[in-house]
Amino acid sequence: MASAGRSTTNPRFRRILEQAARLIHQHGFEATSMQAIADACDLTKAGIYHYIQTKEDLLVAIMHYGMDLFEEEVLEQVVGIADPIERLRQTMARHLRLIETAKEITIIVNEYQALTRTAQRELNVRRKRYVRLLEDALREAIERQLIRPVDPTVAAFSFLGVVMWTPNWYRPDGRIPLHKLTESAFDMYLKGLLPQ
Amino acid sequence: MASAGRSTTNPRFRRILEQAARLIHQHGFEATSMQAIADACDLTKAGIYHYIQTKEDLLVAIMHYGMDLFEEEVLEQVVGIADPIERLRQTMARHLRLIETAKEITIIVNEYQALTRTAQRELNVRRKRYVRLLEDALREAIERQLIRPVDPTVAAFSFLGVVMWTPNWYRPDGRIPLHKLTESAFDMYLKGLLPQ
Repeated sequence: MASAGRSTTNPRFRRILEQAARLIHQHGFEATSMQAIADACDLTKAGIYHYIQTKEDLLVAIMHYGMDLFEEEVLEQVVGIADPIERLRQTMARHLRLIETAKEITIIVNEYQALTRTAQRELNVRRKRYVRLLEDALREAIERQLIRPVDPTVAAFSFLGVVMWTPNWYRPDGRIPLHKLTESAFDMYLKGLLPQ
Repeated sequence: MASAGRSTTNPRFRRILEQAARLIHQHGFEATSMQAIADACDLTKAGIYHYIQTKEDLLVAIMHYGMDLFEEEVLEQVVGIADPIERLRQTMARHLRLIETAKEITIIVNEYQALTRTAQRELNVRRKRYVRLLEDALREAIERQLIRPVDPTVAAFSFLGVVMWTPNWYRPDGRIPLHKLTESAFDMYLKGLLPQ
């Protein structure tokens, strides 16, 4: 029963994870009580504990939910794109969009240190798939001479840095609409700053 | 007395800040007790409280110490460089070096949410100087037609993303030495990935 309830396809459990992510994002993990999460979900604490055993489990579940969303909305959508440059472009566009629509779920990575080693390891395995997707696309683009022979690891983490830093500064209701950010950031990443 | 003791030029206070940063980086802010910080410094709790009133004050002091280091080692060293491209290059090189030498001090930004609004505002003022330095250098480079007419804000935060993401993946004792990382990352940022 509990394990069925804990699937992130269960809308009630998703709602708990989303509310918890919002509170943890605002106040930090340690400062967020299970009571506050229950209140935000209009549930009793017992109602929360039906889905999850401890606050640490909840944090792990939020992070895996973030990875589920990322894999569904980004990885699985781009992995079949034959052109490696187009694959990278779609990856950046989709990831930036996901960060904007599910910000609190996706940027809770800051609370990583609150996890056990085992939980960290499991999440790392999922994250490494992302780095590998980027490195593979870059290597392929280099082989096909679509780009210069750069170090694929440095290039992959430059890509990630550009994308993962956006929640720290970007406001979708500000001067730069999301499609413009995506276009500029990818254009700059790909073409660089010097006149061709 | 207390305010003299609290200057980050005081080596004893610096040592407290460095030890506290190390512990907070490892275990998180909430999970780090003043007792643990005192133990790590071979001091009593009273010895710590001579320098600082509360744990929140300590966190604010660490963040300002990080900004002091950044301003001394990066901003003040590059602000007089006439060529905007060279200014950007030196900024990236010096900031990457600082992150490597004072990692725990500089990446504790994750604990930002534990600060009061006032403390956040004060730190934001200092951070904005950095963004302005980057945007100014980029605008100048655009005016002098050294680079394409990109959006300086997107370009500034792409730069920041590349630099600020490094602590999440880069190990100086790994395959890529620091000078190589700096060279590749800046080269990619500047020239981009497409063959010229």
